[in-house]
Amino acid sequence: MAETTSDQAPRPRLRLRIYLDDSTWVGPGKADLLELIRDTGSISEAGRRMRMSYKRAWTLVETLNATFQEPLVHSERGGAGGGGATLTPAGEEVLELYRNLQLRAAEAGQAEIQRLEQMRAPAPVK
Amino acid sequence: MAETTSDQAPRPRLRLRIYLDDSTWVGPGKADLLELIRDTGSISEAGRRMRMSYKRAWTLVETLNATFQEPLVHSERGGAGGGGATLTPAGEEVLELYRNLQLRAAEAGQAEIQRLEQMRAPAPVK
Repeated sequence: MAETTSDQAPRPRLRLRIYLDDSTWVGPGKADLLELIRDTGSISEAGRRMRMSYKRAWTLVETLNATFQEPLVHSERGGAGGGGATLTPAGEEVLELYRNLQLRAAEAGQAEIQRLEQMRAPAPVK
Repeated sequence: MAETTSDQAPRPRLRLRIYLDDSTWVGPGKADLLELIRDTGSISEAGRRMRMSYKRAWTLVETLNATFQEPLVHSERGGAGGGGATLTPAGEEVLELYRNLQLRAAEAGQAEIQRLEQMRAPAPVK
């Protein structure tokens, strides 16, 4: 979630997508959305913090809910105005799996990532 | 590179992008393009096999060359018609680093990936 605020040669970041079929994946955007729904209890607030429309956030939630055997997000009431939303146990698990995968991948690839960083050209002047 | 040909619950695939700054990354498309340039000796042929225009392939090569201190692709002659292209030592190294990172990440995250696969809904009938 943390974005670098400096534009001077930020550290490399690894972004992972796990494709569950040809057109369905879990990636950083969906993981961040799940995390924000957990933290704010609201799909619209989570979407707002990611600068996406309520419609977009809701579509992503529907996609996630349809991707797994169990829904990941339980929404109390519909409507743009509100109604609480919570992660289901499956939602908590998928979020944790994704975060673990991120950590493990970054650890396992540390040497490669450092070497790519060394090989990188200096940041262009903007 | 290998794409699954079955649309029945293919195995999850991990796709990685390493962001070297906010708008520059090495990901599966660029790695595949480097590999095909290495294997075919031609930017246009590499692009064709990835179903991208020559212009698109060339733009990606220019981006890659500008991303690192050393160019990754050496092109013998310009022009859409041909002229050979080869990977420089830096190009070989970046490709190898990316492939190693892919393997290490998939190994390190094996348990998480398997669990996500278990939790996935059955593939929809198309």
